[in-house]
Amino acid sequence: MSSAQQVRRGRFITLEGIDGAGKSTHLAFIRDWLANRDVDAAFTREPGGTPLGEKIRELLLAPDTVVSLDAEALLAFAGRQQHISEVIEPALAAGRWLVSDRFTDSTYAFQGGGRGVPFERIRALEEWVQRGLQPDLTLLFDLPLEVAAGRMSGTRQLDRFEQEAADFHQRARDAYLRRAAAEPQRFAVLDASRGIDEIQADIATHLRHLLERR
Amino acid sequence: MSSAQQVRRGRFITLEGIDGAGKSTHLAFIRDWLANRDVDAAFTREPGGTPLGEKIRELLLAPDTVVSLDAEALLAFAGRQQHISEVIEPALAAGRWLVSDRFTDSTYAFQGGGRGVPFERIRALEEWVQRGLQPDLTLLFDLPLEVAAGRMSGTRQLDRFEQEAADFHQRARDAYLRRAAAEPQRFAVLDASRGIDEIQADIATHLRHLLERR
Repeated sequence: MSSAQQVRRGRFITLEGIDGAGKSTHLAFIRDWLANRDVDAAFTREPGGTPLGEKIRELLLAPDTVVSLDAEALLAFAGRQQHISEVIEPALAAGRWLVSDRFTDSTYAFQGGGRGVPFERIRALEEWVQRGLQPDLTLLFDLPLEVAAGRMSGTRQLDRFEQEAADFHQRARDAYLRRAAAEPQRFAVLDASRGIDEIQADIATHLRHLLERR
Repeated sequence: MSSAQQVRRGRFITLEGIDGAGKSTHLAFIRDWLANRDVDAAFTREPGGTPLGEKIRELLLAPDTVVSLDAEALLAFAGRQQHISEVIEPALAAGRWLVSDRFTDSTYAFQGGGRGVPFERIRALEEWVQRGLQPDLTLLFDLPLEVAAGRMSGTRQLDRFEQEAADFHQRARDAYLRRAAAEPQRFAVLDASRGIDEIQADIATHLRHLLERR
């Protein structure tokens, strides 16, 4: 043990789920919950989180640029690498908690499940970039596609284009659930089709466990 | 053997070397040599080569953006992946020869040797992106640093900043030579400190071998 005072490492929490799962609402709840307990916490997001990450995000959204699936995965991990070295690791090393709206599980869900990049190819980049870094807790807000779509756009029938998007999101949801099944020690799967109070009671339980863990 | 007519795959040639080694001059010679023998050839370069690659290049040059060494390596390979899928593979599959001014060996030389990214980490990305694709011939224009620096800036003494750059380029040169020693079947190391006629006689010999190879 060093004679210098050791800073206790912070906790790393990620929020995951398909669009319409309610992440933003619950992020605000987590922010308040941690503030009420004087936990020093920082909040970030992916894609983005750094100037480089924001530029990569713009680059991916430019309509005139052809980007292959593999190049997109590499760009996602380039942004993530910068995010880790510039934001996440310094915060954790300084003892802060770090809450990220999306992280690597989103790559497995959307590029992997959604678009078909093999999980083992994503895993190779994950290991290259993260060198073992994993969230202490991943809150997966899970709900049926119909409920998520209904929350976003009302309850009318989906047209063909929206139906295609629904299939994409169904594959993303399935990929999330496979991830959660493979790493149950890290994931908390929350049924996000329930009422907000029930969901947030669950979130509080998981945060309390993380706070009490020594 | 398929009953459809098989297109014979083109040849993939890369040019490598530190700045001042004379690549541009020799590229023009190669262009003429191939044109005189009616070889259908396309010419490209890295970094760049595609709209995405050019945007990544701009992004790396933006002075206000912090980019970690690892993120830079991932971005280089993201651009390369797009270059392969959009330019290099289609040309080779159509039977064209493809000559690229720099390719993966530059990443080993400059990010690896120059900046210290471990070779095995570069190799992991190379395998992820190239899936076995390698140039048929890599012409490495090799020469002592002093000669290269002299060609670029006259023969005056280097200042401290330039000296630092010289150390960087020395490490890059050494990395190139290690690559060439490890893959002698692919590399042709050309002593670029000689007169232009001697060098180009060597280039012609290597191109002739490649043209005659069945």
